[in-house]
Amino acid sequence: MNSTNIELDITKAASSKIDQVDFDNLQFGKVNADHMMYCDYKDGEWQTPKIVPYGPMEFEPSAKVFHYGQAVFEGMKAFKDENDEVWLFRPDQNFERINKSSKRMAIPEFPKDYFFESLKTLLELDKDWVKKGEGNSLYLRPFVIATENGVSASESDEYRFMIITCPAQAYYNKPIKVIFAQEYSRAADGGVGYAKAAGNYGAQFYPTKLAKAKGLDQIIWTDASSHEYLEEAGTMNIFFRVGDKLLTAPTNDRILDGVTRKSIIQLAKDNGVEVVVEKVSVKEIVNAAKKGELKEIFGAGTAATVVRVDGFEYDGTYHDLPTINEPYGTFFKKALQDIQYNRVEDPHGWTMKAF
Amino acid sequence: MNSTNIELDITKAASSKIDQVDFDNLQFGKVNADHMMYCDYKDGEWQTPKIVPYGPMEFEPSAKVFHYGQAVFEGMKAFKDENDEVWLFRPDQNFERINKSSKRMAIPEFPKDYFFESLKTLLELDKDWVKKGEGNSLYLRPFVIATENGVSASESDEYRFMIITCPAQAYYNKPIKVIFAQEYSRAADGGVGYAKAAGNYGAQFYPTKLAKAKGLDQIIWTDASSHEYLEEAGTMNIFFRVGDKLLTAPTNDRILDGVTRKSIIQLAKDNGVEVVVEKVSVKEIVNAAKKGELKEIFGAGTAATVVRVDGFEYDGTYHDLPTINEPYGTFFKKALQDIQYNRVEDPHGWTMKAF
Repeated sequence: MNSTNIELDITKAASSKIDQVDFDNLQFGKVNADHMMYCDYKDGEWQTPKIVPYGPMEFEPSAKVFHYGQAVFEGMKAFKDENDEVWLFRPDQNFERINKSSKRMAIPEFPKDYFFESLKTLLELDKDWVKKGEGNSLYLRPFVIATENGVSASESDEYRFMIITCPAQAYYNKPIKVIFAQEYSRAADGGVGYAKAAGNYGAQFYPTKLAKAKGLDQIIWTDASSHEYLEEAGTMNIFFRVGDKLLTAPTNDRILDGVTRKSIIQLAKDNGVEVVVEKVSVKEIVNAAKKGELKEIFGAGTAATVVRVDGFEYDGTYHDLPTINEPYGTFFKKALQDIQYNRVEDPHGWTMKAF
Repeated sequence: MNSTNIELDITKAASSKIDQVDFDNLQFGKVNADHMMYCDYKDGEWQTPKIVPYGPMEFEPSAKVFHYGQAVFEGMKAFKDENDEVWLFRPDQNFERINKSSKRMAIPEFPKDYFFESLKTLLELDKDWVKKGEGNSLYLRPFVIATENGVSASESDEYRFMIITCPAQAYYNKPIKVIFAQEYSRAADGGVGYAKAAGNYGAQFYPTKLAKAKGLDQIIWTDASSHEYLEEAGTMNIFFRVGDKLLTAPTNDRILDGVTRKSIIQLAKDNGVEVVVEKVSVKEIVNAAKKGELKEIFGAGTAATVVRVDGFEYDGTYHDLPTINEPYGTFFKKALQDIQYNRVEDPHGWTMKAF
């Protein structure tokens, strides 16, 4: 990344916790690297970003984030290549999206130079936490929370932007089973579904818990009005392969504009795979499954990269997906990871050296 | 309230802050009484509730509430009568509703005896913070937040239930202007609109900010699918008086089942006012306004009690509401407050002596 004139306020950890971590048995999101960034918004502006040792912070119980869910986040990953260089994947997309999310949630936008300088500094300080090897990464979690004290339901006038980081292995290590939503919904037209707003996630936990009780892992959400169109999974966008065509829903105000999703659409075009970005009807997919034409479903997201779906439940019937040779999912996962770990050329300029 | 066998863990404030508070100039939700309650859920159960001096608490930045909005709340008020007795208004309704909200948000339900014993203890300790006089109350804010550390998008296995309290005057002291939603939405069918989930509120701040920029105070939300039916305002249910009939939308999975709303419906029946609890169409209301048959709109909620709407914008046109004699809104506000302040008989057993 280019250097800027931003001066961060840096307090280094007295010692590293890295030796206490078993990197072969990481639970996603549970372990934090040594440092974090926080930056407060007050008196109408973002103050100097601070890098400090990761640890608890004090908040008043009346802070608005606890009551009104005025909070947004992002998910990104840093990858280490064979030469120990650390890379980010399309961080400009995450930066743009967190501000898009913030705007919808009435949170002030964050300055670009603060964002990139903070990432750079954190990754340089904690570079040993970024492990080499397939599936390994340092997961980066930028987020913004409303910190004004006071339980009145209006937007906060104080915020905290933070970046915390967690060493990660692959998010899902086996294929998942899903259910197509018929009762519950994730987002309304005119709502906040397209934003990475905190409340979008908490609202999915209960329906997902019901799905898990039936032995299913995730829900593929459908449109709230008719439940006739497949939209996205809770933490991933979703692709369907019917014959040799790859189908995925267009983004709209209910669907998150995923970075992995748009990268796969581009990679499909690069590799001569026909991609159809149109509303995907439940009927069409169920019929394709019945006729044996539905060859694959896979999810795509930063945490998961690409995850194979091996079957779906709809209307009380479970449909197994076939095991096929050379699945698109595997192909795109490898193509993405080759770029992310700097193992191949990067024709679209997606990667950025971290420091 | 009945006494129970619950032992709370109580740490009293060394001294009271009450003398520092200007009770004639309170900003809603900004000042907290001396004590608060918190109760942690871990290892599968709610621990002993603790009463402690109000103040900041430590949270890890990876606590799930900051990332996934897994949080719910309630709003209640305690009133002081002329004999210095402190009363709660239908607290059973708030207790039931917070557990209903919790269930939808995959949060474990809170025990009834913990809830009531905590309220009783807090109100007894901080009884001087409940001021006599019209519009004065101690606002009570029970809430639950997900406190497990770890940025993976699934329900927390640790929670904190809290009650904080704020001395309050009337929430809105003047009539408000509203806009009927045509673009943005509050809740989806199959979503969490009926729950007091934190994210429902944060999601309204941006559209409300746009409304405020046009000189309007609040949005009356319509159904997300068609925007043809009027549902609720952000922090209130909503009533329309057409001729002498009182109309309000039935509750559904998008609309909060308000305690003030259901109390007004009962009071209307008690007083021979015809109440129609049916879908209220935008067309019907706009036509009634044009014909001069729309006599009143008012909002009803715990924070606001009853607030008069003096006009609404729809489709770019602002419709003024007439000033009428003996408005229903004023009548119901007085009828409610007479019960809340223990000035009249309470035929439905709505009030409960706090301690």
